[in-house]
Amino acid sequence: MDKQECVCLPKLSRVAVCGGTHGNELSGVYLVKELMKRRPQEDDEDRNQPILVLSNPRATQKCLRYIEVDLNRCFSHDALNSPLSDSTPYEVIRAHELNTQLGPKGSPDSVDLVCDLHNTTANMGLCLISFSDSDWISMHIFKHLQQCIPDIPMRYIHFDLPSDESYSLDSVGKHGFAIEIGPQPHGVVRSNVYTTMKDAVEHMLDWVRLFNSGTVFEGGPVDVFTLVKHIDYPRDCNTHDVIAAIHPQLQDKDFCLLNPGDPVFQTFSGETTTYNGSESLYPFFINECAYYEKGIAFSLSRKRCVKVPTVWMHQDQSNKL
Amino acid sequence: MDKQECVCLPKLSRVAVCGGTHGNELSGVYLVKELMKRRPQEDDEDRNQPILVLSNPRATQKCLRYIEVDLNRCFSHDALNSPLSDSTPYEVIRAHELNTQLGPKGSPDSVDLVCDLHNTTANMGLCLISFSDSDWISMHIFKHLQQCIPDIPMRYIHFDLPSDESYSLDSVGKHGFAIEIGPQPHGVVRSNVYTTMKDAVEHMLDWVRLFNSGTVFEGGPVDVFTLVKHIDYPRDCNTHDVIAAIHPQLQDKDFCLLNPGDPVFQTFSGETTTYNGSESLYPFFINECAYYEKGIAFSLSRKRCVKVPTVWMHQDQSNKL
Repeated sequence: MDKQECVCLPKLSRVAVCGGTHGNELSGVYLVKELMKRRPQEDDEDRNQPILVLSNPRATQKCLRYIEVDLNRCFSHDALNSPLSDSTPYEVIRAHELNTQLGPKGSPDSVDLVCDLHNTTANMGLCLISFSDSDWISMHIFKHLQQCIPDIPMRYIHFDLPSDESYSLDSVGKHGFAIEIGPQPHGVVRSNVYTTMKDAVEHMLDWVRLFNSGTVFEGGPVDVFTLVKHIDYPRDCNTHDVIAAIHPQLQDKDFCLLNPGDPVFQTFSGETTTYNGSESLYPFFINECAYYEKGIAFSLSRKRCVKVPTVWMHQDQSNKL
Repeated sequence: MDKQECVCLPKLSRVAVCGGTHGNELSGVYLVKELMKRRPQEDDEDRNQPILVLSNPRATQKCLRYIEVDLNRCFSHDALNSPLSDSTPYEVIRAHELNTQLGPKGSPDSVDLVCDLHNTTANMGLCLISFSDSDWISMHIFKHLQQCIPDIPMRYIHFDLPSDESYSLDSVGKHGFAIEIGPQPHGVVRSNVYTTMKDAVEHMLDWVRLFNSGTVFEGGPVDVFTLVKHIDYPRDCNTHDVIAAIHPQLQDKDFCLLNPGDPVFQTFSGETTTYNGSESLYPFFINECAYYEKGIAFSLSRKRCVKVPTVWMHQDQSNKL
């Protein structure tokens, strides 16, 4: 794909903006509620307004990440096609509902773009997270946000999984990404983070309107951080308790190159442990609250430059892939 | 009391260090677990070791603030004397257990000092929180911590309630205070916050050893921040939803004087609201995660200087008030 310099793509007729997929990530929760309030009752999809979704209302109500299982791991092909029963967790049922509303995933009926709003306790600035490094729509939106909000550190993260294995809500659309902004504690809304998210969503919707009205968007390079692996905390063999914190020299240093031998953890008794990998890589999601239970202290990525082609809307292919 | 220049006080024979009173405030959880690991099996109170308490083990296990009700509001006289039944919340039962272990509150059998470890998402540095502004033991420990850890902003907060209405775990001891350190997201441990807490506890125990061995501690002035009132978020009349975040000019400005007319909130639609009080006061607990449900966006305090007398141990009154 890197050799393509110009690409025609179908109109983006149906765009969904989702918040509260994790009920305690409050910028997205309050932003979607605010956008819902602003919309006059009579507005609907015909007027080119985004579809607004509060993804996990029960978890949002309780200010928890989830009620039974992590909703944002319930959108793989297998999970969406599993039979439901009386013992099916709430979030799996909710994933099926959302797949009906916004999908079905992988079908021509799915919405054109899903933007799912998240927060992290990690010092990650604003990240677009996508399962593709050749989704030119997502990458052009990223470039647009970089231009429009130049004072916020911004990165494009790529989770390299095939489409049917991609597990998050944004994978239900023909195009999709998460907007992840931090640092913000879960269960808290910070005005600077909220405002950045609001600006990003407005600029994203502006870009879609410009694209749909025929604007040509020039290509260019985008740095892509592709996930390589996760690193867990040191743990007690018997209790599985965490026995170390992220080292002060690594804490808040998301996207700063980590070299072999650099400090990564400080045990609760005071010893330093170092990075014993053989390759220098870029850490991110450093000390994300929700990942303690997932066995992730931080993730490591490889950075490379992707040449994004010029794009414009193909007049004859609106609403089709 | 301000006129007293020298005060003799009984020996502090039994000191309790408690963590996990809120199960998702991880510095205290991991510090108490670490101190428990370090202690040889044969050590006990006879060897002048502190009593170590993991206050809410079920909430700690689930990394939640509490299971049913906030444990740290269960230690008032009325709550501790309420009859138990099958429907009594877990934390009320646990409070009765802790009162048996460390109290009974208000009796000669209660431990001499309770130090309860907490974290906040607010930018409060290290605070000692006490129900007394004339507990010279707590105030001398505060002065000692200020001297030993000069690079951490440190304040003494006073909640002005009579002893039988004081509701927190530290009120069970003859002397007691919470050590509150932030900012740290709940459910996360940051090495700098953990290390500060560890240093504070070690210096506190050093002070107790020095006091018990006859050291005379010179008096001096201490700034005390006494709670005046709480301020709630602006909320939707119908849904009771929060409709504004702490204003960016107030966020992280704990203990910076708030004057009438200063910005305090920014609504999710972008408007600024200002402080309409008539008196300049000192805000704290600004944007504390756990206080959204309690209707507290921040608290306001009045600062005054308390003259702490010189203290030493009264040889004949050890173990008595």
